[in-house]
Amino acid sequence: MPTETLLRERTATSEADLQAVMAEIGRRAREASAALALANAAAKTAALHKAAAAVRTRVAEILEANGRDLAEAEEHGLTPALRDRLALDPKRVEAIAEGLKTVAALPEPVGRVLDRRTRPNGLVIERVSVPLGVIGIIYESRPNVTVDAGGLALKSGNAAILRGGSESYHSSRALVAALAEGLRGAGLPEAAIQLVPTRDRAAVGMMLRMSGVIDIIVPRGGASLIERVHRESRIPVIAHLEGLCHTYIHRAADPAKARAIALNAKMRRVSICGATETLLVDRAAAKTVLPPILADLRSAGCELRGDPEVLAIDPAAVPATEQDWRTEYLDAILAVHVVGGIDEAIEHIERYGSHHTDAIVTEDETAAERFLRAVDSAIVLVNASTQFADGGEFGMGAEIGISTQRLPPRGPVGTEQLTTYKYLVRGTGQVRP
Amino acid sequence: MPTETLLRERTATSEADLQAVMAEIGRRAREASAALALANAAAKTAALHKAAAAVRTRVAEILEANGRDLAEAEEHGLTPALRDRLALDPKRVEAIAEGLKTVAALPEPVGRVLDRRTRPNGLVIERVSVPLGVIGIIYESRPNVTVDAGGLALKSGNAAILRGGSESYHSSRALVAALAEGLRGAGLPEAAIQLVPTRDRAAVGMMLRMSGVIDIIVPRGGASLIERVHRESRIPVIAHLEGLCHTYIHRAADPAKARAIALNAKMRRVSICGATETLLVDRAAAKTVLPPILADLRSAGCELRGDPEVLAIDPAAVPATEQDWRTEYLDAILAVHVVGGIDEAIEHIERYGSHHTDAIVTEDETAAERFLRAVDSAIVLVNASTQFADGGEFGMGAEIGISTQRLPPRGPVGTEQLTTYKYLVRGTGQVRP
Repeated sequence: MPTETLLRERTATSEADLQAVMAEIGRRAREASAALALANAAAKTAALHKAAAAVRTRVAEILEANGRDLAEAEEHGLTPALRDRLALDPKRVEAIAEGLKTVAALPEPVGRVLDRRTRPNGLVIERVSVPLGVIGIIYESRPNVTVDAGGLALKSGNAAILRGGSESYHSSRALVAALAEGLRGAGLPEAAIQLVPTRDRAAVGMMLRMSGVIDIIVPRGGASLIERVHRESRIPVIAHLEGLCHTYIHRAADPAKARAIALNAKMRRVSICGATETLLVDRAAAKTVLPPILADLRSAGCELRGDPEVLAIDPAAVPATEQDWRTEYLDAILAVHVVGGIDEAIEHIERYGSHHTDAIVTEDETAAERFLRAVDSAIVLVNASTQFADGGEFGMGAEIGISTQRLPPRGPVGTEQLTTYKYLVRGTGQVRP
Repeated sequence: MPTETLLRERTATSEADLQAVMAEIGRRAREASAALALANAAAKTAALHKAAAAVRTRVAEILEANGRDLAEAEEHGLTPALRDRLALDPKRVEAIAEGLKTVAALPEPVGRVLDRRTRPNGLVIERVSVPLGVIGIIYESRPNVTVDAGGLALKSGNAAILRGGSESYHSSRALVAALAEGLRGAGLPEAAIQLVPTRDRAAVGMMLRMSGVIDIIVPRGGASLIERVHRESRIPVIAHLEGLCHTYIHRAADPAKARAIALNAKMRRVSICGATETLLVDRAAAKTVLPPILADLRSAGCELRGDPEVLAIDPAAVPATEQDWRTEYLDAILAVHVVGGIDEAIEHIERYGSHHTDAIVTEDETAAERFLRAVDSAIVLVNASTQFADGGEFGMGAEIGISTQRLPPRGPVGTEQLTTYKYLVRGTGQVRP
């Protein structure tokens, strides 16, 4: 299938046609993946720089495409919040281009020697990082994710098949065209970053069944998408589940730190996965520490839901139900619970949390170390805001999400986490006794 | 449920009873897992030493149990090869005890600081190894695997739920009793290593549905088991698929090394996953290099299946079909194929191989590095036998299998590979701007 035919937008496609398109995309991705795995760091870096330049020169075209998406979004009655996520302007396009340059500047993630040992028989065994292969990324209607995901996949030597939310379809096409220009300019295969050329939802199901072609699926978005992936696909997943994060104020907390951290952890941005959803407070400290914290939160526009002890301190709070401890609000709502001590706090986090990110505020080092050790989450913090749960803040440059699964990659998923490894064994004729 | 009731052998159980038993095993495993994750290295090492001692003092009991398994195996007409795998004798029991001491002596895999960085804002971010949690291991009728798997899980701080092949049931029970004695002696929960107390096959299906209780499933055995796990379970898997391994004799191979490696790679043990199944030979070297290799293999009892060029060199070989390139014989049969050069060899391995272990024999360093880089397998060797694909040979002490999946762990799975990691972030009151 010639490129122009393949990349033509598909509307009202028959299932057979769509199957053929997806098979062709898969074939090209595998071919590109083999080339990318052998590409040197300089070529990948050049492609990212040239893509950034192309995003800049194509700004008018990108904004025009985004305008079409926004017009359709209005027609379909998208909420203002979703429209804001979708909308681009010259400043946001510039940020997208800058993002590509940041990824370009990251250390080369492929070919790192992770371990090296010489065996008594003379065999030299190296464990070396290599790309994952072909990554299928399914995400929300956020045009910037198209470029972030494509850029991170490219830097880590992977081919990407992108399936963004249908509301951002035109914007994503325009952005992928810029990425393709960068790839071409650096002599790398354009098929290294492909966008599924249809808004037909059936394409997602087809991606999930492309086992043997797609090596890893990265689902971004709600729990229902991840549920669907687990149900329909046998392809390994890097899943980002909900972030039901806790901030626990220990009896030995510094009240000023507790106050600043609690406000930031909840209210800096309420819609990100690292936002705190439940505040736990030691009974011994609740009466003195809680009032200013709750006052701050309320003035910032946060609804407070508390257990009876919290209500006794703050009668204006809403009574919390069991369901509140289990809810990832992603909104200006905070559940507040008084606990008897660190054991009860850890137990609460273990029972209700999502093993994403949890924090303790304390000046007691023994308590801090205890919490770090016992809380079984991807990220555990002492005396810092849970909103630091972010690849950029971790010094990874950028991330595609935060993995809440147990097997690696766990936590923020950046370029290193989009690689795996293999063992290279160099011998001189050794046979096994 | 009291321990003695739980551990009583279940025969002709109702599904409801079995469900109750499995739920109780799961509950205990989670409890044990929480304790083990916090256990110090000394306690785990002591448990392994005491378990080794218990295996030794219980040798009569273990052999008696094994005798019952063997008698039933004979009744059911098990093949001699399977009976040999099942059979214990004092020497094999001693080797099992020694295996536990080897695992005890391995470096502590939990609590390793894998990465540590201080951010400009003063946050100190550490990535630290932690246990996976509760591991469900489903394996063949090999009593030694009961102890290897239990020991590796324990050393890496995981609770294990073991489901061995039903033919080894009595032997495994006797061995798990010895492991329990070791755990008790070291003050660790016995439930750290539990054997499913029934031969009822329904228990496997129940394990596969214990998502939220079992964190990772390790299926050992044929492709059909792994297929079943992928079909029935949403629990992440560390899967060991087939080992369709290649040895490629490059035109610049040293003929003597090629000869020794080819024979060892195929015939040292034909039933292990690292055994070579297809021999590739450069056309430029075939006529001189192949005859002595094929003669060695034939005298060792190996059946040879070749393409027309191989048949021209060795008319006694059987004509190979396309299916031969796709077959993991696990037997004294070798497929032999002449290729035009390294590109064709890499292409053949990519098309027909299982990304497990592949080797090149060559004195040409450029070709060697090319092969190491381009062949996309968990283990790639130069001038060494594919039979080195083994955790022990890699210096890992012991392994539970060799993972052929792309995401880590890939390759031999030892104690380190049975851990994951979490991020510990220590701050002094930082909030995110």
